[in-house]
Amino acid sequence: MKPRFKPVPGLLKFVGVLALTTATTMLAQDAAPAVPKMGDVSNLRIGLDTVWVLVTAMLVFWMNAGFALVESGLCRAKNTTNILAKNFIVFAASTLSYWAIGWGLMFGDGNGFVGTSGLWFVSGADNSPALGAAYAAMNPFSTETYSGVYGAINWTAVPLWAKFFFQLVFAGTAATIVSGAVAERIKFGAFLVFSFLLVALIYPVTGHWIWGGGWLAVANFRDFAGSTVVHSVGGWAALAGVIVLGPRLGKFGKDGKVHPIPGHSMTSAALGVLILWLGWFGFNPGSTMGVGDGKAISHVLVTTNTAAAVASITSLITAWTLLKKPDLSMILNGCLAGLVAITAPCAFVTVTSSAIIGAIAGVLVVFAVIFFDKLKLDDPVGALAVHLCNGVFGTLALGLFYNYDIASTIAALPPVGADGAVIPAANWGVMQQTMVQLKGIVSVGAVVFVLSMIFWYVIKLVFGGIRVSPEEEIEGLDIGEHGNEAYPDFQAAHKS
Amino acid sequence: MKPRFKPVPGLLKFVGVLALTTATTMLAQDAAPAVPKMGDVSNLRIGLDTVWVLVTAMLVFWMNAGFALVESGLCRAKNTTNILAKNFIVFAASTLSYWAIGWGLMFGDGNGFVGTSGLWFVSGADNSPALGAAYAAMNPFSTETYSGVYGAINWTAVPLWAKFFFQLVFAGTAATIVSGAVAERIKFGAFLVFSFLLVALIYPVTGHWIWGGGWLAVANFRDFAGSTVVHSVGGWAALAGVIVLGPRLGKFGKDGKVHPIPGHSMTSAALGVLILWLGWFGFNPGSTMGVGDGKAISHVLVTTNTAAAVASITSLITAWTLLKKPDLSMILNGCLAGLVAITAPCAFVTVTSSAIIGAIAGVLVVFAVIFFDKLKLDDPVGALAVHLCNGVFGTLALGLFYNYDIASTIAALPPVGADGAVIPAANWGVMQQTMVQLKGIVSVGAVVFVLSMIFWYVIKLVFGGIRVSPEEEIEGLDIGEHGNEAYPDFQAAHKS
Amino acid sequence: MKPRFKPVPGLLKFVGVLALTTATTMLAQDAAPAVPKMGDVSNLRIGLDTVWVLVTAMLVFWMNAGFALVESGLCRAKNTTNILAKNFIVFAASTLSYWAIGWGLMFGDGNGFVGTSGLWFVSGADNSPALGAAYAAMNPFSTETYSGVYGAINWTAVPLWAKFFFQLVFAGTAATIVSGAVAERIKFGAFLVFSFLLVALIYPVTGHWIWGGGWLAVANFRDFAGSTVVHSVGGWAALAGVIVLGPRLGKFGKDGKVHPIPGHSMTSAALGVLILWLGWFGFNPGSTMGVGDGKAISHVLVTTNTAAAVASITSLITAWTLLKKPDLSMILNGCLAGLVAITAPCAFVTVTSSAIIGAIAGVLVVFAVIFFDKLKLDDPVGALAVHLCNGVFGTLALGLFYNYDIASTIAALPPVGADGAVIPAANWGVMQQTMVQLKGIVSVGAVVFVLSMIFWYVIKLVFGGIRVSPEEEIEGLDIGEHGNEAYPDFQAAHKS
Repeated sequence: MKPRFKPVPGLLKFVGVLALTTATTMLAQDAAPAVPKMGDVSNLRIGLDTVWVLVTAMLVFWMNAGFALVESGLCRAKNTTNILAKNFIVFAASTLSYWAIGWGLMFGDGNGFVGTSGLWFVSGADNSPALGAAYAAMNPFSTETYSGVYGAINWTAVPLWAKFFFQLVFAGTAATIVSGAVAERIKFGAFLVFSFLLVALIYPVTGHWIWGGGWLAVANFRDFAGSTVVHSVGGWAALAGVIVLGPRLGKFGKDGKVHPIPGHSMTSAALGVLILWLGWFGFNPGSTMGVGDGKAISHVLVTTNTAAAVASITSLITAWTLLKKPDLSMILNGCLAGLVAITAPCAFVTVTSSAIIGAIAGVLVVFAVIFFDKLKLDDPVGALAVHLCNGVFGTLALGLFYNYDIASTIAALPPVGADGAVIPAANWGVMQQTMVQLKGIVSVGAVVFVLSMIFWYVIKLVFGGIRVSPEEEIEGLDIGEHGNEAYPDFQAAHKS
Repeated sequence: MKPRFKPVPGLLKFVGVLALTTATTMLAQDAAPAVPKMGDVSNLRIGLDTVWVLVTAMLVFWMNAGFALVESGLCRAKNTTNILAKNFIVFAASTLSYWAIGWGLMFGDGNGFVGTSGLWFVSGADNSPALGAAYAAMNPFSTETYSGVYGAINWTAVPLWAKFFFQLVFAGTAATIVSGAVAERIKFGAFLVFSFLLVALIYPVTGHWIWGGGWLAVANFRDFAGSTVVHSVGGWAALAGVIVLGPRLGKFGKDGKVHPIPGHSMTSAALGVLILWLGWFGFNPGSTMGVGDGKAISHVLVTTNTAAAVASITSLITAWTLLKKPDLSMILNGCLAGLVAITAPCAFVTVTSSAIIGAIAGVLVVFAVIFFDKLKLDDPVGALAVHLCNGVFGTLALGLFYNYDIASTIAALPPVGADGAVIPAANWGVMQQTMVQLKGIVSVGAVVFVLSMIFWYVIKLVFGGIRVSPEEEIEGLDIGEHGNEAYPDFQAAHKS
Repeated sequence: MKPRFKPVPGLLKFVGVLALTTATTMLAQDAAPAVPKMGDVSNLRIGLDTVWVLVTAMLVFWMNAGFALVESGLCRAKNTTNILAKNFIVFAASTLSYWAIGWGLMFGDGNGFVGTSGLWFVSGADNSPALGAAYAAMNPFSTETYSGVYGAINWTAVPLWAKFFFQLVFAGTAATIVSGAVAERIKFGAFLVFSFLLVALIYPVTGHWIWGGGWLAVANFRDFAGSTVVHSVGGWAALAGVIVLGPRLGKFGKDGKVHPIPGHSMTSAALGVLILWLGWFGFNPGSTMGVGDGKAISHVLVTTNTAAAVASITSLITAWTLLKKPDLSMILNGCLAGLVAITAPCAFVTVTSSAIIGAIAGVLVVFAVIFFDKLKLDDPVGALAVHLCNGVFGTLALGLFYNYDIASTIAALPPVGADGAVIPAANWGVMQQTMVQLKGIVSVGAVVFVLSMIFWYVIKLVFGGIRVSPEEEIEGLDIGEHGNEAYPDFQAAHKS
């Protein structure tokens, strides 16, 4: 072992072959120029946009922790390990399935219904970072024009893996929404398989319609950050699961009464919602997938936060009025409802409108929780009230509160159609935009619900049931599914 | 339903009306130019600064989770739901009140005492992103000069909603400080009303004096990130609350002895402080509200971290010496004390000075906790020792350790007076700067304390008391105020 | 007190002395120029890189919370306060020791074995932000050439304090790894002293060999983000501690059987691993210490996430097969194993290779846990299986899956030797690179293990033992070491 402590100076000669992270254009032979070159400044622009996309994607990834805590906190201690395991593994499974299949179906070039190019493992041709021709013409820094098979997302100039990771964390969110609604009774393996299929096959198809340049995009249906693409898709899949599974034992008594089953840790639940609130600052503002002059991301951040805050207050007031006490779980779900509702319209409405949208969402969620209980649809964490109802409401609200000035300057994310042409924001009246939104809500809902029913039933058939035994449900899924208790050092209050 | 799968190519003609996020200047007719234009690079500068301001603001938002966990962790299990609810709703209420009233009073143009323009709902004229004339002259990228009614914050070039959101999360912090001191005995509604008023009326007025170009700014009082503006303001309001409320039942025995009431979860408390430590990396470095060449934000980050680390060590040593054991809650409060103390001077002192400031803060907080107990002022989480004492100490420390070289290159945030003129850092000696700091501490303290006393008493009168009944206090506020237990699945160790 | 409400307009004349954060070149006398100047755009480049370095460093700091929760969650309730205190104070101690000594030993100019310049308190000459000559020649924006005594890290153009803070959080991670392996029996003071010495003296020396331009760097040993520099170093130090301390009472029965000791909170453990997963998005992508055109940071983020996801799945499958149940703690350790394993190679391998590396790591960790139990090495949280085994495996994997195309475009971080010359990535075959990797693994492992054994024994001698008494171990270290229970309001399930 004879280490060279002094590398020969001649080594410097080879330096030219290296592409440094801080430079892609080689100027070794020039003196430092007096004026920056376009290509170098272009890399700065792309670099800044990439930092924004990755940091906001990390915030959305962090929502996995939020969903894990909200769901486990609002369920019983005996099912905690199971719920944490589900929420943990669901993102791992989503990573695999979105990489392998989902991305290509969603963003691959194809027809109005599905992507058909570059399908497997994000392996299609792509010269990102580079902008599509229509956008490049308007981008003062553009030095290269996009060519590749993922044309529907050529409006953002970041590298391919940045686009992929950002979209992956959104796909993972849709899957994790299902988890909450089917908690405390579903088999671990069945949930895992459904999640894989949802992210591989269902989510990307309806996603293609809207964000992949498909028929709804062309029809001018708009959903900025996914009230429909992510939340109501997750919600419809969850509704199918809830129907197929049936309610938890003891939730609906033989007397026809609803028996509340309180969660085991309000600390987990509240921390979880604060994580989600934070994560949404990635979810919505990050959906610009670029920084521009900072106006769009600032506007979207403030509409998002305002809706969440006002919804928390109105759900507090509604719960205080209806239930006589300011129930914390209602406040928490109110906040989430406001966030889900503002997700589609955050870049299309004023800050004042975002407050109104939040106010409605906060009231709506309380009534929705009561409504689903009336229907005997057992949703332990209120996922249907939050993600399905308010995903639908938010998508409609984009039409009802549509502001063309904001849509054309802030949202500024004209999707591209199947032929790569830009689809500008329509200068429509409220009624016209709302009708298109309604069309999208119904089409997506119908397809996701039907496909989910089919998938749940197929899994039930193949795996011999998707629900744990009554004995296991009573003892808790932690022991039955995982062989671990979550809190072995603490004395349980009620053996149930 | 006849979706158009192939948008007509003519659609491209309309593209010109769109402002893309990646471009604000339209160059569709030009070939890609060889040299970047000033306006485009200006947008890059503004974009980068906006990303920094928003990301650091998100970190400060995240401190809400930290405060919620520290406070609930250091209090009893029976009050957990109540404490989480308070900490959750306080930011929602702050959002509403700062948007509706607070922002305008703090940053609206006016006189030395209060803003009088653009008061309601951030609705004043403002052409941000744009720099004030005095700054624009020095900014090589500046293409537009600020004109609007929020002149006191025209030194940062980010869009208005970015300025608003950053300032909002600071206002929310002041309110949440109060929460800890009044915990385990205050009525939920009374706290909510006080928080709203604090953020709407008290915080912005003293904030205007210092950050809004008011009389203290003009007098060269300095507070980089809010040891006074945020922390001691929260501390004085908390002190008033503690006096009006009185101590918790059982804290001070009839024998004159202090009975410690241990918190229910050191996991919550420690996680909370780690969240706050992280959040402070937004609080202090973010207060540059711009990135520059990266020197200022790096310097402030390291002074902040060093003070926190050294304070943790000195509070450990102090507690180990005085109490014979290295008490974890003292270490945690020591860390927070260091963070509060470095908040004002972080951009005005060397890294070595930051270590000394931290060292003093870590000792100070332990004695302060003992001191407040001696005064029979019951502060369940040590909020007065942390935020009031060390907010005052940190503001003084800015004078005592003032370094003009650093102040003029790192802090580099000359406030503007009521007429929009820049107020440069004074090249003063330690004594002169310290005297001005003292003037600010006393004026702000007196006004906030008196106004808070008035508000607490008015709320007491209007709502028929601000304290829960002794029965409810003994049973726990979770049942009494919210009708929910936080941990129903676990057996309580002591019925109390 | 006569505040000046209206600062005299003449004040504007003094403005010229101020360096604004948004501008470092003074152009007050010019009209806004039509074309940006090189120095201004250079500051934008440095500013963006600094934001990236600081934000990712914050994410690595946040890993302290992850380690605290994983370790405490996987240990018993009676030791929670102690474990939280250890994990909290270890970063404070690391800050002090890395500032005072470690940084200089690691990055100070010197010989192939250790830095010898600018040793104390980061006080050496340094004109950062500025690039080393070899890099400056290639950087189109470079306006100043590096001169100073920390030449080994002159490839990144960020300010000195940004470099320091980024490296500090890595040093802190090495120390915190030790904490988990020695949990539930080590004296608080002994751990604190060892941590200080590890970060001051051991970590920086082997770090100097690899990242400080030492003999391994020159020999072309590569470790992008620290599978060896951080994780296996922490692992070897932990192994020494485990040997010196011996197993916990009751872990290995007199019957020769292994008695599992379950952790007290799967909520803490799962949240902790999600925090670590998020933190790793700072750890690996941040190790570029610059943004470039965004390709490198995007690639590294996706290899990191893919390895983590696949490892979670393969550890799930392995545990399900071997233990008959999908054990959550195995899934969590599987995820961490994948993260540790991809840390070295993340910038040298394809995304597909990262999936394979993750797949192997997930299997490896399960067998490693069983293997260490067989050796009667008691490691309560699996730190050896995660950080030592997979740190070694990941370092080897860099050789086994080495891809020169990616290494030369993505990794693009040529270290510099002791004379400041750049050491380019070698266009070697797999075998040659793997052999160099092996050389590094063995050398670093031998030195760290031997030094750690010496330090542990010296501490044992000086402090009269490093292990708590059997009585204290049975009662719990919370009472014995700190005088506090972590959860006094809850009834313990088993008195042990």
